[in-house]
Amino acid sequence: MNPTHIEHIGIAVVSLDESIPVFEKMLGTKCYAIEEVKDQKVKTAFFKVGQTKIELLEPTSPESTIAAFIEKNNGKGGMHHIAFAVEGIENQLAEAKSLGFRLIDETPRGGAEGLTIAFMHPKSTCSVLTELCENKNK
Amino acid sequence: MNPTHIEHIGIAVVSLDESIPVFEKMLGTKCYAIEEVKDQKVKTAFFKVGQTKIELLEPTSPESTIAAFIEKNNGKGGMHHIAFAVEGIENQLAEAKSLGFRLIDETPRGGAEGLTIAFMHPKSTCSVLTELCENKNK
Repeated sequence: MNPTHIEHIGIAVVSLDESIPVFEKMLGTKCYAIEEVKDQKVKTAFFKVGQTKIELLEPTSPESTIAAFIEKNNGKGGMHHIAFAVEGIENQLAEAKSLGFRLIDETPRGGAEGLTIAFMHPKSTCSVLTELCENKNK
Repeated sequence: MNPTHIEHIGIAVVSLDESIPVFEKMLGTKCYAIEEVKDQKVKTAFFKVGQTKIELLEPTSPESTIAAFIEKNNGKGGMHHIAFAVEGIENQLAEAKSLGFRLIDETPRGGAEGLTIAFMHPKSTCSVLTELCENKNK
């Protein structure tokens, strides 16, 4: 596999309204986009720091995997996943599978910001939920 | 505050021997350094992906905070901290304090790879253990 950089770090938060000002102060930059991802039942907020984005994720339903993460974490948020930017996500995913990585998404799907994404299972990635993503619109 | 980029992502692992090959396959790059940080009771392994490093942390003692993290996480590793590169860490730390961030390290100290580092408390950073670091040797 051959990721070019870390596209984003996903951070689960209880409340975007409370968390956005904290990250704006810490990063010295404004949140540049807020987007609801309905099929994931989350509302996301994005910041840019160098090559990488910080993606805050607030659950919009108790059925969201982010809600489950927060519940398991004693009602607190925290670092949730790491996303690597790749080129040719279909080939990268096939290579991941051939290398023994367990795929959550066997085929890429649409994610926030118009990216094409696929998750790998933390059981095969040292307990780190890992996403591959490609910007096919650039 | 004004970080320039994400310097590294710290990932707790149970075993470097088992985890290094996983990350080498996933990142398509070799681990470029292994270093023991005695005062933190950890052994670290580093990879580079774009601007950012992945720092794997294996505890060398049950008293290590990384050992405590793994124990709390049901014997598994996972994403442990995020480190932002800053310039003028003393001023950045003073600004952090004035903005209401709670400091673990009131004054910067030495970290892995010869960096000057300071941690902020997750209670003030949306439950994300956050490090500031500066390369004063460059």
